[in-house]
Amino acid sequence: MKRTEIGVALLGLGNVGSGTYEALSENFASIEKKVGAKVVIKRVLVRNLNASRRVEIPENLLTTDFDDILKDKSIDIVAELLGGISPATGYIMASLTKGKHVVTANKAALAAALPTINAQAKAHGCMLRYEAAVCGAIPVMGCISRALTGNDITRVAGIVNGTTNYILTRMAEEGASYEDVLKDAQALGFAEADPTGDVEGFDAANKLTLLAAAAFGTYIHPDKIERVGITGVTMEDLAAAEAEGKTIKLIASAERIDGGIFASVKPCAVDKDSFLGRCGSEYNAVQIDGSLSGSIFLQGKGAGPRPTGSAVAGDIIEIAQAIAAGNEKNQPFTAMI
Amino acid sequence: MKRTEIGVALLGLGNVGSGTYEALSENFASIEKKVGAKVVIKRVLVRNLNASRRVEIPENLLTTDFDDILKDKSIDIVAELLGGISPATGYIMASLTKGKHVVTANKAALAAALPTINAQAKAHGCMLRYEAAVCGAIPVMGCISRALTGNDITRVAGIVNGTTNYILTRMAEEGASYEDVLKDAQALGFAEADPTGDVEGFDAANKLTLLAAAAFGTYIHPDKIERVGITGVTMEDLAAAEAEGKTIKLIASAERIDGGIFASVKPCAVDKDSFLGRCGSEYNAVQIDGSLSGSIFLQGKGAGPRPTGSAVAGDIIEIAQAIAAGNEKNQPFTAMI
Repeated sequence: MKRTEIGVALLGLGNVGSGTYEALSENFASIEKKVGAKVVIKRVLVRNLNASRRVEIPENLLTTDFDDILKDKSIDIVAELLGGISPATGYIMASLTKGKHVVTANKAALAAALPTINAQAKAHGCMLRYEAAVCGAIPVMGCISRALTGNDITRVAGIVNGTTNYILTRMAEEGASYEDVLKDAQALGFAEADPTGDVEGFDAANKLTLLAAAAFGTYIHPDKIERVGITGVTMEDLAAAEAEGKTIKLIASAERIDGGIFASVKPCAVDKDSFLGRCGSEYNAVQIDGSLSGSIFLQGKGAGPRPTGSAVAGDIIEIAQAIAAGNEKNQPFTAMI
Repeated sequence: MKRTEIGVALLGLGNVGSGTYEALSENFASIEKKVGAKVVIKRVLVRNLNASRRVEIPENLLTTDFDDILKDKSIDIVAELLGGISPATGYIMASLTKGKHVVTANKAALAAALPTINAQAKAHGCMLRYEAAVCGAIPVMGCISRALTGNDITRVAGIVNGTTNYILTRMAEEGASYEDVLKDAQALGFAEADPTGDVEGFDAANKLTLLAAAAFGTYIHPDKIERVGITGVTMEDLAAAEAEGKTIKLIASAERIDGGIFASVKPCAVDKDSFLGRCGSEYNAVQIDGSLSGSIFLQGKGAGPRPTGSAVAGDIIEIAQAIAAGNEKNQPFTAMI
């Protein structure tokens, strides 16, 4: 039977949820044309019905009860945009069990349990997509998992955390201390009150787990990734790098060497004039080296409601196209593990 | 019935054909794993059975008769890698009529007749993919047609011709004349004996037709694109640009303004320090502006046997995955026109 409508639920209406809501609302007509069916937001899970939000949304869409979504047969796709491991992982697993396809921006939940979540998706014939989990609007997962599938990928390296890049860029440009810039970044909303996840490299390690799985078909738990944050980077370190024409960036890198995969997140002095060295402020940049393609360079906004919403919407539309075309149960998966 | 083998024919065994042959051969085992079936080259169309080639290939695969391919029911996918409008367009149309999916790197054939070729693909339920036609290994078509589908794309602009970028880069860096650098580029194989297609912007206009179709759903015949080549760019022009911190690049740009699409290929003075200004030598670079994503920047090798083979192989693998999954007839198309 030809589908005229594909139902979507959003879990969360914070930064990413509201950006996704904007994407699907603003471009409703063009998305319908691309999909061949309406892509309709049916329910939105929120913690507090009366919270203030970035977007205006019809009240009847809101619910605080995940079961309302799980039981709703009109919902084909669950977009998990809560972040954090719990309760998000449970919601992802339950949605897949019910045969609902899942899009998520949640690098922490995915990185911690990718093989389990991926196996669950496969077992229930569901699609699982997470372009938004790595570098926001930059199509890095699609580049690795599709465009470069004919390559033997040898290395993925990038600046995948905007908060630390913002801090390091301002330290380098202003000769300011880590502590001073961090305070400023917190005031401006570029860093969280507890910045540990960003500045100690946990967020970057989660993303690297996802990049390495796509590039090498190997699951490396984020705890197994060599990880050094930026809290130890001093003004003196940056000045010494500068004197050599370099700058310090928090580089997440996974490389195949002699059959093994070596993954690390750590501050590295890179040429100021190189692709990664020139990626400043809150931007993200990734370099992917393929055996045929050579180096492919991708840069763009790695965070923020609308850039991340762009990536979530792209994944939702792709799944909606598959459903509308009657290919719902047979799509290949993003993860190669 | 579960497919264990997907058959591919290559039309042409020049630079792109040989690069594609390398991609599918070198990574045969990993591609089989990704597809769930063997992706096997069944026949290769060549003009001369005894020509010298970049790759060694079993003689029994070669044929000079396109009908051998058209009639071979074991061939699911035809990769048209001849270039030029004729006979390539006829081969593409005939392959689609026979229900064979088509991958092509041929921007001239596609740009000249995209609506006709696309309609033929739709009419016969075939997939048509051409990532390799625009900027070689850089996944620019996939970025527009998939990752950014949730966006209203406002502008696509890039350096999409490596030959002219090589010439302009050397002119700028060495203060050399157009004529001298062109001669050198021809000797080095970066420019053809008759360089008109590149230096007068015809090649870039063809690519811009494909970019605009994907980004805006609008077909603009390359003859309708404002087109100025680089033959009029003088050492004085470059010196004047340099004095203002700029450099001259051949920029292909399509932009939506007040509901209309404005497309042009012409030499532009851009900031030396900008993303496009810093794209030197034979590299290609494209900037895509989306309503949610902001600017996405992509850079890489836009030509050459292996980078272009990377893109052709990626498209072949995607189609092979769809066939193996039983979704052969229901895939959405790349072109939005």
